[in-house]
Amino acid sequence: MTAPQALLFDVFGTVVDWRTSIAAQVSSALPELDDPYGFADRWRSLYQPSMEEVRSGARDFTRLDDLHLESLRTVLSEFDIQLSDGAVADLNRSWHRLDAWPDSVEGITRLKTRFVVAPLSNGNISLLLDMAKNASIPWDAILGAEPVRAYKPMPDAYLRTADILGLRPDECMMVAAHNSDLEAARDCGFRTAFVRRPSEHGPGQTSDLDASSDWTHSVESITELASTLNC
Amino acid sequence: MTAPQALLFDVFGTVVDWRTSIAAQVSSALPELDDPYGFADRWRSLYQPSMEEVRSGARDFTRLDDLHLESLRTVLSEFDIQLSDGAVADLNRSWHRLDAWPDSVEGITRLKTRFVVAPLSNGNISLLLDMAKNASIPWDAILGAEPVRAYKPMPDAYLRTADILGLRPDECMMVAAHNSDLEAARDCGFRTAFVRRPSEHGPGQTSDLDASSDWTHSVESITELASTLNC
Repeated sequence: MTAPQALLFDVFGTVVDWRTSIAAQVSSALPELDDPYGFADRWRSLYQPSMEEVRSGARDFTRLDDLHLESLRTVLSEFDIQLSDGAVADLNRSWHRLDAWPDSVEGITRLKTRFVVAPLSNGNISLLLDMAKNASIPWDAILGAEPVRAYKPMPDAYLRTADILGLRPDECMMVAAHNSDLEAARDCGFRTAFVRRPSEHGPGQTSDLDASSDWTHSVESITELASTLNC
Repeated sequence: MTAPQALLFDVFGTVVDWRTSIAAQVSSALPELDDPYGFADRWRSLYQPSMEEVRSGARDFTRLDDLHLESLRTVLSEFDIQLSDGAVADLNRSWHRLDAWPDSVEGITRLKTRFVVAPLSNGNISLLLDMAKNASIPWDAILGAEPVRAYKPMPDAYLRTADILGLRPDECMMVAAHNSDLEAARDCGFRTAFVRRPSEHGPGQTSDLDASSDWTHSVESITELASTLNC
């Protein structure tokens, strides 16, 4: 087995702390709200169902920004909150301004010296690009659902990304905090690295607290992954 | 008119010196060849015709790596040169290993502090990504023909790139050494910057020696563009 050439990262939860970042921005936009974490969690809970419509073929490929906007309007309605269209659009762009976990930028910077580093996220290109500019994440390229028009965990999301890179699947390594993402990537022939993020969903997190399988690597941080891979 | 948000760069000729780089690699791969520049020029002469088949709809979108390979086989045949498939594939990857003009990396690095910087090239993603890694070009994202499945100067190449970025065309600036590229971009509503590269085609160059129109900016180098834009 040759060395991997590219490390492809899940982003929401793996590289960035979406929950704290979204709650902070919700709190700023809606200061009267009692529970910004509850709002963030409810918004995020509509993420998988919104993509499922695309995965099932019920609707054409639609960028995550647009799915996020539809979900936000649903949540605002549930919370009985009225906002101008401009304020809704700005709040929706909170996902472009997420903060990285403390180890992410150093880890990715070190890994970039030996490997291609890129997101393989369900986020759209401008979301990931703005996030990278804001958080100084030094990606080599912005990949993911939009260029391949397929949402993870559909096999096309992984296989078409490898094809774009001109690599065989086993030359690619998926890096994620979610066992299901790694499972789907491994089924496509990717190598796998689990990064434990036990507070992604806050203090009461029950999922992905540990590696559920013998992934190629299992680490506590992206800097630990860099050390493991001699970077 | 608001400030531009993204600077989108033509690459072959504008950011990198393809002719010298290809000739050097041809010379290394085919040491018995008398005129590596002639070989490079002939190979490049098949570039526009090969894309024209895609633009006209005569064939489906095909990556530039594949078009380059077909053109290379044609040129090898014309020069009556036999090579193994592996050697042909490696020579074809010369386009992934082009050297930047001396001002490119400094200029793009400075521009990146204020703007999104990305290629809007007909090169495919892995070609541009490998080139950026080799030449240390700090792109924020790798855009161009492949993500939008349209070759310049088709309007879709420019308009879909702006759409991916979530920007209006007038928030984008095309940076190129080729007047025809800027003409097509301006027709789509982009701002324009002409970078003079009078030796792209060698000492006998006759085309694009000067700006043919009143582009938004006209400069001698990417570092001059950075200074012009206060970077």
